[in-house]
Amino acid sequence: MDALQQEILEMGARARQAALALGNLTREEKDAILHSMADALLAREAEIVEANALDLAAAEANGLSAAMIDRLRLDGKRIAAIADGIRQVADLPDPVGETLDDWTRPNGMRIVKKRVPIGVIGIIYESRPNVTSDAAVLCFKSGNATILRGGKEAIHSNGAIADALDTGGRKVGMPEGAIQLIRTTDRSTVQHLAQMDQYLDLIIPRGGKGLIETVVSLARMPVIKHYDGICHTYVDKAADLEMAKAIVINAKTQKPSVCNALETLLVHRDVADAFYADAGRALLDQGVTLRGDAAMREVLSGEKVEEATEDDWVTEYLDLILAVKTVISVDEAIDHINTYGSRHSDCVVTEDAGTAERFLNQVDSAAVFWNTSTRFSDGEEFGFGAEIGISTDKLHARGPMALPELTSYKYLISGDGQIK
Amino acid sequence: MDALQQEILEMGARARQAALALGNLTREEKDAILHSMADALLAREAEIVEANALDLAAAEANGLSAAMIDRLRLDGKRIAAIADGIRQVADLPDPVGETLDDWTRPNGMRIVKKRVPIGVIGIIYESRPNVTSDAAVLCFKSGNATILRGGKEAIHSNGAIADALDTGGRKVGMPEGAIQLIRTTDRSTVQHLAQMDQYLDLIIPRGGKGLIETVVSLARMPVIKHYDGICHTYVDKAADLEMAKAIVINAKTQKPSVCNALETLLVHRDVADAFYADAGRALLDQGVTLRGDAAMREVLSGEKVEEATEDDWVTEYLDLILAVKTVISVDEAIDHINTYGSRHSDCVVTEDAGTAERFLNQVDSAAVFWNTSTRFSDGEEFGFGAEIGISTDKLHARGPMALPELTSYKYLISGDGQIK
Repeated sequence: MDALQQEILEMGARARQAALALGNLTREEKDAILHSMADALLAREAEIVEANALDLAAAEANGLSAAMIDRLRLDGKRIAAIADGIRQVADLPDPVGETLDDWTRPNGMRIVKKRVPIGVIGIIYESRPNVTSDAAVLCFKSGNATILRGGKEAIHSNGAIADALDTGGRKVGMPEGAIQLIRTTDRSTVQHLAQMDQYLDLIIPRGGKGLIETVVSLARMPVIKHYDGICHTYVDKAADLEMAKAIVINAKTQKPSVCNALETLLVHRDVADAFYADAGRALLDQGVTLRGDAAMREVLSGEKVEEATEDDWVTEYLDLILAVKTVISVDEAIDHINTYGSRHSDCVVTEDAGTAERFLNQVDSAAVFWNTSTRFSDGEEFGFGAEIGISTDKLHARGPMALPELTSYKYLISGDGQIK
Repeated sequence: MDALQQEILEMGARARQAALALGNLTREEKDAILHSMADALLAREAEIVEANALDLAAAEANGLSAAMIDRLRLDGKRIAAIADGIRQVADLPDPVGETLDDWTRPNGMRIVKKRVPIGVIGIIYESRPNVTSDAAVLCFKSGNATILRGGKEAIHSNGAIADALDTGGRKVGMPEGAIQLIRTTDRSTVQHLAQMDQYLDLIIPRGGKGLIETVVSLARMPVIKHYDGICHTYVDKAADLEMAKAIVINAKTQKPSVCNALETLLVHRDVADAFYADAGRALLDQGVTLRGDAAMREVLSGEKVEEATEDDWVTEYLDLILAVKTVISVDEAIDHINTYGSRHSDCVVTEDAGTAERFLNQVDSAAVFWNTSTRFSDGEEFGFGAEIGISTDKLHARGPMALPELTSYKYLISGDGQIK
């Protein structure tokens, strides 16, 4: 075992000890710690900006794009936003301790099912330094210890933020080891974390598909995956076409870079001509590149519409590009989504309640929308207050994942000497 | 890709199609299918016994122990018991379709959280052929398709049982591919299953630690693990010692081969002498081998008490052997359990409610008992009607795992044109 692996194991052991202590903190204690973390972040603004300058200089030297450099940048305003985010988490209800069930068996044994923290969570993430705080405080509020492993582009910024959280938190009673950052970008640390199932209860990778794939192939413990959002909107023959147009334009153009944005439009053939003529043209006007089938290309023959291929059905563009297919029925739409989709968020636009019900029940996705833009597939929009991501898994957490999804449960059984 | 991997992939694709159809069956349809499966098992008793004879002959030729051969054996009575088990599952309520939550957002969007099947579940198991039916029907009732991969010792028996389930089920509308058995024992099939995350949503290994470890190291999808039960009973200084004796004897001796049996006894030093003199001797009388510390060996100096070592704290004997340690406080007991235990089932015996509460809250195990034998850590005893195992994981399912734990959920959102 090399020194680095030994170091990660020691972090794991510390995190496990911290987790046992964290499970017993009251809501008031946790919220006081969170506010003290926010205070420390603000008090250390100068140090954080200084550390960030090192990352920015390295980014420029390495020729990172202007957009990537901007994502990396921290200033007073952004640091204040991170601190505000922490105070918002403090305001959320504490999921830990909630009684989920409570019953008594015929032999007199009482069983109480109670919500408890998961334990130790590993977060492996890429560039943006605010994730250091955002992820750690959600895990902390739900009673979990975290081991954070950020990307090399933000190594100095992440260190300064983690120092602030640790100092601020421990000043008012946060257990040592509750929030730990791996302070090297040696790639082997991902492997060491992923193999350490004696200490780590869960890994959440936050980043691109390549990162998630790597973690999935290495991990011995559960991984909650936030894969692609290949989201569909199906415009039914019974759709209100004005509503459909507004939803499609919103889902595609309002923020195309996010996972709940529209990627593939499916249109019933009975309304295809009318919809393509009106909404298709509107999408082109909004700067959207269309990749359609023969039906669409005929209607928009004067316009540049590329030919859609099988590849388009499985592509998450995250850009102003839209794949379009004409279908003969809601069943073909459902089949298409269940075959090519990513089980994330999909929408049907129809005035026919039977068709909507069929679509909602049969599309196998985390969130299925009727006459509502898929852009609402989001923890904030659902009213969860905060989210750590949108799970494309079906186990433990599915869809927008908030504080309750960062907990487990246990059974507390009491009796008066029952034996079997 | 070799032919076998291709075959497994085709099973995966069929299972996924079946799963989509299964999700839409009503409870009545599923229960009719289950009863038809039970009927088919009984009708095919002769074929099943004949297939089983081939496995028994191979087992004898390979020199398997009498106990293992007995586990493998199927006769009319055991086949009837398997069929009865299926009818009991038919009698259980259907978890699918349950509304878990239902709320409306300020923008008028209504969100319904509904229980749905997980999808496709892989079951990898060892010798006993009844698992072929037990596991498949629990997954079926909760709307999931299964791919079964049994041990080579039961290959013919498993085939005959799976044929009966498939024939019986399909006669009354079970979708093709809902229950599939891998009919080879080539070891590579475990790997092919574990890598097939495009079709398999979950793997449940049922068997020894070696099997679980193999699956964990290979799997790309969630694995629900049923690891060791290193269960503890802590006899507090405020214990009713008669009750403690009865609980300890029950938990250790009533069925020592199961995962919720007692493995390590912790005793507060204030009551150690009295408890060892009485309960220790009673355990010896029951044929239990004791591995104790100096305190116990002194009290029972006339008896053969082996010396406990660190190894004993992490050993699941599954036998009439008991490790014993004297502790100075409930906190030492909690620390010992959280350090050496397997997070399965642990018990405190005390008349002091404060001590019990401390133990119940701080021991990080799936089921924590107060004045009740750990032998009750079981789906049937909890009133769940059936269980597929006792999860030692903290994600998705913890402790006794029944039908609701074989489901996921989805969000159905409806609106009237909401856009962001």
